[in-house]
Amino acid sequence: MRYKVTCSYDGSKFIGWQKQITGLSVQEDIERVLTIMHKRKVGIVGSGRTDRGVHAINQVFHFDTDLNIAPDIYLHALNAQTHAAIYMKSLELVEDDFHARNQVKKKIYEYIINLGEYNVFMKNYQLQLNHELDLNKMKEAASSFIGTHDFASFNCNSFKEVPNQIRTIFDIKFTKEDNLLKIEYSGSGFLRYMIRMLTQTLIEVGKGTMEPQDVKNILEAKDKELVSLKAKPVGLYLKKVYY
Amino acid sequence: MRYKVTCSYDGSKFIGWQKQITGLSVQEDIERVLTIMHKRKVGIVGSGRTDRGVHAINQVFHFDTDLNIAPDIYLHALNAQTHAAIYMKSLELVEDDFHARNQVKKKIYEYIINLGEYNVFMKNYQLQLNHELDLNKMKEAASSFIGTHDFASFNCNSFKEVPNQIRTIFDIKFTKEDNLLKIEYSGSGFLRYMIRMLTQTLIEVGKGTMEPQDVKNILEAKDKELVSLKAKPVGLYLKKVYY
Repeated sequence: MRYKVTCSYDGSKFIGWQKQITGLSVQEDIERVLTIMHKRKVGIVGSGRTDRGVHAINQVFHFDTDLNIAPDIYLHALNAQTHAAIYMKSLELVEDDFHARNQVKKKIYEYIINLGEYNVFMKNYQLQLNHELDLNKMKEAASSFIGTHDFASFNCNSFKEVPNQIRTIFDIKFTKEDNLLKIEYSGSGFLRYMIRMLTQTLIEVGKGTMEPQDVKNILEAKDKELVSLKAKPVGLYLKKVYY
Repeated sequence: MRYKVTCSYDGSKFIGWQKQITGLSVQEDIERVLTIMHKRKVGIVGSGRTDRGVHAINQVFHFDTDLNIAPDIYLHALNAQTHAAIYMKSLELVEDDFHARNQVKKKIYEYIINLGEYNVFMKNYQLQLNHELDLNKMKEAASSFIGTHDFASFNCNSFKEVPNQIRTIFDIKFTKEDNLLKIEYSGSGFLRYMIRMLTQTLIEVGKGTMEPQDVKNILEAKDKELVSLKAKPVGLYLKKVYY
């Protein structure tokens, strides 16, 4: 049997989604619990990685099991034993050919920026920019990203690792409530660090250190040496994965 | 010259307000920076202690200085050097006889409880109760606390340490927005752990394990052995101090 699980996690407590020898990852902690429950090694397949410090409101993974446990009991057992900064929201039986990574149709990420006074409580949960940005210019710059483009300029991987850097961004939505600016990206998929690079570029436009036309030129140059800045992971959330 | 400073801090990062040898306190970190700036030992006097894990939105302290620095420069210098989980919001020159602890007229604390689904991001910032409470019964029980009472039953100190356990609670306000319940206590002053004990008692009433009349009886008994439970510090915020 294959289960699809939706979970949230506080990225500030982990080295990232993927297993690494340098610290505790979300994947490792969940696999540890499943392995105890099954008395054999159990692996999980996530919809994709999130980097160190990046949060998830709804990350999705799948795993195979032969344990005959009701879904709500399974959920309870997982939540009782995994790290307190991980929470399984739902668990559902899926077809054996469901694949959490290969079948992703759309992903939504959100980046949260505090334009107001420094907030000590939200230090790990919002970028503390603490000054205003020119939203109109940011929206104008963001419009260049929408559609299908070769995002080579917003990519940190070598061409050998990720030969195809063409991705489709369906939409970039800006909402501002009080002093919180939220930038929501929906797309077919994203390169490593891509959203943080796009976001930092938009912030530069908002600050006036770059113009919307510069952004268009950078995108069209398809040159990975052009963008070196990326926004901190603290403000980034994997919000939803669609299949 | 005497300065009055208003600051916020994330209590989950400290052992509490007061200096202790067992870990970093808010007071110690601020005094460390002031001592460097003054090239001599500088102490600060807070409006009162907050315990380990308890947050402050507006804690107040005073200190004396002979440095002739403009308040905004002072503020900037303090914020640049103190722990990232502490933020000085304002600094103002006061009379030499102002006293941050002795002249407190009123204090407001707020306790935040998440009645909805477990929130991984707010683990250190709200009590994760994750189920409903009977608000009407809680309000009825809370009404017993309002006014001037001997709070000996809601006190963890020995009579020797705090001989007078009579305190005045001006008001207890309940607000509920979505799944967040906020209980705001305003009073002349509070005993150590008192608000956490009051809150846990109200939670017991909300869960139905205690009745409002039981609470009235406990208060009137003035017996410090009666209440042993206290709500976790994570949901508690020192919101405002009035002089």
